[in-house]
Amino acid sequence: MLEFSHGGDVNGFAKQLGCCVSEVIDLSSNINFLKPNIAVNFNALSIDSYPNYDKLYDAVAQNYAIQASQMELFNGGSSAIFSLFSFLKTKGYERCTIYSPAYLEYKKAAQTFDYHLKHINRLESIGQMVLPNSLVVFVNPSTPDGALYELEDFLDEWLEKKCVVLIDESFLDFTNAKSATQFLDQYPNIFILKSLTKFYSSAGIRVGAMISNKSNIEQFQAIQPAWKISQFDSSYIQEALKDTKFKTITKAVNAKNTLLLNNVLEESLLFEKVFTTSANYILAKLKNIDAQTLQKYLSHHKIMIRDCTNFDGLDETYVRIAVKSEQSIKRFKKALQRVAQKSIS
Amino acid sequence: MLEFSHGGDVNGFAKQLGCCVSEVIDLSSNINFLKPNIAVNFNALSIDSYPNYDKLYDAVAQNYAIQASQMELFNGGSSAIFSLFSFLKTKGYERCTIYSPAYLEYKKAAQTFDYHLKHINRLESIGQMVLPNSLVVFVNPSTPDGALYELEDFLDEWLEKKCVVLIDESFLDFTNAKSATQFLDQYPNIFILKSLTKFYSSAGIRVGAMISNKSNIEQFQAIQPAWKISQFDSSYIQEALKDTKFKTITKAVNAKNTLLLNNVLEESLLFEKVFTTSANYILAKLKNIDAQTLQKYLSHHKIMIRDCTNFDGLDETYVRIAVKSEQSIKRFKKALQRVAQKSIS
Repeated sequence: MLEFSHGGDVNGFAKQLGCCVSEVIDLSSNINFLKPNIAVNFNALSIDSYPNYDKLYDAVAQNYAIQASQMELFNGGSSAIFSLFSFLKTKGYERCTIYSPAYLEYKKAAQTFDYHLKHINRLESIGQMVLPNSLVVFVNPSTPDGALYELEDFLDEWLEKKCVVLIDESFLDFTNAKSATQFLDQYPNIFILKSLTKFYSSAGIRVGAMISNKSNIEQFQAIQPAWKISQFDSSYIQEALKDTKFKTITKAVNAKNTLLLNNVLEESLLFEKVFTTSANYILAKLKNIDAQTLQKYLSHHKIMIRDCTNFDGLDETYVRIAVKSEQSIKRFKKALQRVAQKSIS
Repeated sequence: MLEFSHGGDVNGFAKQLGCCVSEVIDLSSNINFLKPNIAVNFNALSIDSYPNYDKLYDAVAQNYAIQASQMELFNGGSSAIFSLFSFLKTKGYERCTIYSPAYLEYKKAAQTFDYHLKHINRLESIGQMVLPNSLVVFVNPSTPDGALYELEDFLDEWLEKKCVVLIDESFLDFTNAKSATQFLDQYPNIFILKSLTKFYSSAGIRVGAMISNKSNIEQFQAIQPAWKISQFDSSYIQEALKDTKFKTITKAVNAKNTLLLNNVLEESLLFEKVFTTSANYILAKLKNIDAQTLQKYLSHHKIMIRDCTNFDGLDETYVRIAVKSEQSIKRFKKALQRVAQKSIS
């Protein structure tokens, strides 16, 4: 039997279907389908000495309008998360409040480092109290629904409760919203995560940034191993950040294609609710079939989507669909029409 | 004033001297100066989906004659070390015994994760007792001296004392010695570190392997973030491991050049002792000048060496010189002759 439990594994999916990877439309992973212009010859890169990350730090810091000393770079967002959870445990934080549904690595990190964990269901009871003295995790725009929140509404309460706050802005680059970096001077206990791999279309490279004030970063850096990031990845990101038009183009195309995809979902009549998104994916609640069934139907069209059953606060009726090219949305539309016919008949 | 505190930072060194990086002879970092044949076009690599490491695991496991399930791969040796120290702390290990001098990341990791630390001076009192129930760290061949040890002499004692043992074999590939992987079935609490970046001449890429029995690795893997390694780095290592002649050539050239370098050091009359090595570097104790002075003199010849002052058990009279090309050894020889003239006059 075919199983499509997660998203992202295009190779495994193609293998199961017995087709080529290039035939698959992957709407399960929320990687930008547009690519920055990379004008570097990776084969000519010198990799025989230990990497120096100064230029990479400067480029990323400039991109996010902060100082390099306010940031620690990691081999990807998930490594940054695990390291922060480990670090804050040694600083005496024993509890964690996750605004759920959220990126699942947070739950795994909380369990790994033995935090007492509370989920606040963002979709149903966002006004609930956080655990005092806890590590509060808030993803903005959120995953898997893409809602964009005004943090002013929450920050005072969190910090009154003596919490340390992690704002995950891995998808903020897709929006025109202001970053939580604006609060760095005002609040001492904010960390902000930037995963560069989503926006810069490079899940295969591993670079993520954890931002906070200089004093927090100094302490955080003291517990880091000497070298974490590949020289290749460092070069890729520096090159990607040089492509200044890329941001504007991505945001424009993403806004346009989000609208297209939204219409496709609404018109299919398969969904009870299509969520409003500010990111490059749309969450939708199915009406008469469940996520696994829809996945199975779509697999006949070589289309992958994300079954959201394993997100806290969601169930087997939720799916997430990534916003990709116009062409892929058209193919998805046709496939959905077939599914609708099937599920009615 | 010029300062050459560490090794490895060729760019910084060249900048201080106001010369090109290509003019510098870096004998401070112990990266293989020979390079494997890499027949891959990195620019054509697909990096837009999340990496699958199955092939990389298979290739590395096969190279070390173990099962892929007996190994966890990391973005470099230092990340592997930090993760193991963190993991073992949660397993109840509170103490650490380091056979010193050793790679300095071990001391940093022990301090970071708040282990009670004991150094055993390998060079003076290797027979000393380890701390019971401790994490024992033994580098073989050792750094910075390159001594190769028979582990049978130690293992029984370590495990009698209920220790967990980490054998760092980052330089074992330069030798023909048998790996500690031979003890995996016999002893339950052995971890073995393989840093692939030294032998495969790629400090800029970040891949290292932590090996143990399947049960230990399963537990260790459970606390790891989802993706740690760059797709570029994964490809590089897979390609490097395909170059089967590279091992034989490296070992032969390294043996020959080690002899050359050894003679140069002995004949210079600057050293009280030149250590016997099995790796790709030589430790030597200076006679009449200290390491900083020698570094300063050699900087006029654009040559970098490693001042070993900050290694536990060594002092300001020790330097480590990497075994590189015949040509670089010749230039080093001439420079040493000038230094000898200066320090006598």
